[in-house]
Amino acid sequence: MEVKDLGEFNLIEKIAAHFNGRDQDLLIGIGDDCAVYGKGSKKLSLVTSDMLVEGIHFNLDFTSPYYLGGKSLALNISDIAAMGGKPRWFLLSLALPGHMDVSFVEEFCTGAAHIANKYGLKLIGGDTVASPDKIIISITLMGEEDGTEPIRRDGAADGDQIFVTGTIGDSAAGLELLKGGTSRDSENKSHVEVIMKHLSPTPRILESEFIASGKIATSMIDISDGLLQDLNHICRSSGVRGKVWLDRIPLSDSYRETAQGLDLDTPFPLVGGEDYELLFTVPLEKVEELDLLEKEFFCRVTHIGEIVRGEGVALYDSHNNEIELTQYGYEHFKAGQ
Amino acid sequence: MEVKDLGEFNLIEKIAAHFNGRDQDLLIGIGDDCAVYGKGSKKLSLVTSDMLVEGIHFNLDFTSPYYLGGKSLALNISDIAAMGGKPRWFLLSLALPGHMDVSFVEEFCTGAAHIANKYGLKLIGGDTVASPDKIIISITLMGEEDGTEPIRRDGAADGDQIFVTGTIGDSAAGLELLKGGTSRDSENKSHVEVIMKHLSPTPRILESEFIASGKIATSMIDISDGLLQDLNHICRSSGVRGKVWLDRIPLSDSYRETAQGLDLDTPFPLVGGEDYELLFTVPLEKVEELDLLEKEFFCRVTHIGEIVRGEGVALYDSHNNEIELTQYGYEHFKAGQ
Repeated sequence: MEVKDLGEFNLIEKIAAHFNGRDQDLLIGIGDDCAVYGKGSKKLSLVTSDMLVEGIHFNLDFTSPYYLGGKSLALNISDIAAMGGKPRWFLLSLALPGHMDVSFVEEFCTGAAHIANKYGLKLIGGDTVASPDKIIISITLMGEEDGTEPIRRDGAADGDQIFVTGTIGDSAAGLELLKGGTSRDSENKSHVEVIMKHLSPTPRILESEFIASGKIATSMIDISDGLLQDLNHICRSSGVRGKVWLDRIPLSDSYRETAQGLDLDTPFPLVGGEDYELLFTVPLEKVEELDLLEKEFFCRVTHIGEIVRGEGVALYDSHNNEIELTQYGYEHFKAGQ
Repeated sequence: MEVKDLGEFNLIEKIAAHFNGRDQDLLIGIGDDCAVYGKGSKKLSLVTSDMLVEGIHFNLDFTSPYYLGGKSLALNISDIAAMGGKPRWFLLSLALPGHMDVSFVEEFCTGAAHIANKYGLKLIGGDTVASPDKIIISITLMGEEDGTEPIRRDGAADGDQIFVTGTIGDSAAGLELLKGGTSRDSENKSHVEVIMKHLSPTPRILESEFIASGKIATSMIDISDGLLQDLNHICRSSGVRGKVWLDRIPLSDSYRETAQGLDLDTPFPLVGGEDYELLFTVPLEKVEELDLLEKEFFCRVTHIGEIVRGEGVALYDSHNNEIELTQYGYEHFKAGQ
């Protein structure tokens, strides 16, 4: 069997099965946004890692080295945010073809340093190696739980309400525009807005800190693979079913305008991915605590569904009819994406 | 200017210059075998990362997925050993072409799990992504200082004596054989021995623990780029000069036989790299404590030179004449390697 027939999530299970020893200091291993270890220490340690491959995750025709540097770091920060942690140190590994101009590295690092400084992160190591042709970026980010408990994927319970920060689908629509030849210098402001959401996402660190310190969420994830796919990760880990109301999905005006022009179909924003918004579940009695997130952090928070008994993820239209889903979102190796 | 004209070590300096903020919890950042952080915690944390690219670091015509999995982990363990740390947890990121057979992953993980179990390590995360053509492996290994101080690169002082564990050059000779078409199933036992040193190196964790707990070494590094290159890393960090006596370099009988057949030149074992032996400096009054390493750990330890005032690395023949060096060892991006 080939890797592409197995799919990313089955592959991860296959890999994990080889390394199933116990570890008394480990709180959370494979299967969440970060691993968490250091039970008994003053602060729990979080760690997450992402690998980006040229031609798969990014295309230098669409993005600049500056934005690529910032985004590479931002998406790891988003994984720390998804668990309510505080990002601290990172390792940067770069594989570069020998003929690359050094200016690529300069601009990449300028972009990454901008994000590192914004969130108070420090580069402490990594690796630089030659690559035959493609650029490969691997970042490992370490963080801490600063007196809070990590928010896991597996805590969602029957009756919890589902919330999402910000708006959904902008990044995926921006990517569609870029693929179609629209640049980030377009004169259409809506186009520029969704393109920039794709090139330069903002991880929700402050919002995550608020949610974690108030113990508001029973489960949380950041949206990288697509809202439905990531909700399914929560549901699978928690052993519950997620119901989502399509007409509640928060869409930006820029998204609506772009989607109309591109003729994007209804589930597009739900499966597009790379939103790097927080998707989380909240028990009914905690819901009103979210008001502060909007008032103090000026962060749009939308109630998009609820957790029920069962499994999987279901989408409902405004007449409460279930909409059939052919896919949840992005998965590496799956053919035809 | 292209990356290959700049060279690996200048590139690292260029990257590091972008991220020069201070961090009060950081003990050692870029420029050693591991980063070390967590001042004030019960245990210091160590972290190291290596990226391996198909066609640059490995060739599946020469190695098997099983050995590749083990070696990928072993060379990170060796970095933790170089600082006297105890390896604990690792992240494994794999970029794989979709057409790869799943058996590759199974065998790779079996090999990695063999090493993980041997050294008590636990896989806690990582990433699996698609790759257009080449396999890329990135491992981040986290460890702890278990009541010991990390052994840095920058502590070598005038008068210290230089030691190395094991034998040198076997791995590089093994690689030459593999490139020339000799397989690990060869009937020549010497050939098999040096080939296996290349495919399945043993990190010196036990020896490192002994050296660290006895506070024997003033500086230490593991030999990955080549003995002279790695000694130069110590000398540059410490602001001293390293003198090495060529006739003291420990060579195995298998190396000698292989080198004769392949017509390898004199400095070959010193610049070949991938020995994953420990290279360290010891003050005169501590030298005799190394006896136990040979007696209790059955680890060959050889006195190969001394630290003097000055800079760089010098090689001397048995008549105390300096041998001119054209290169110290391996460096990524450098042309003509």
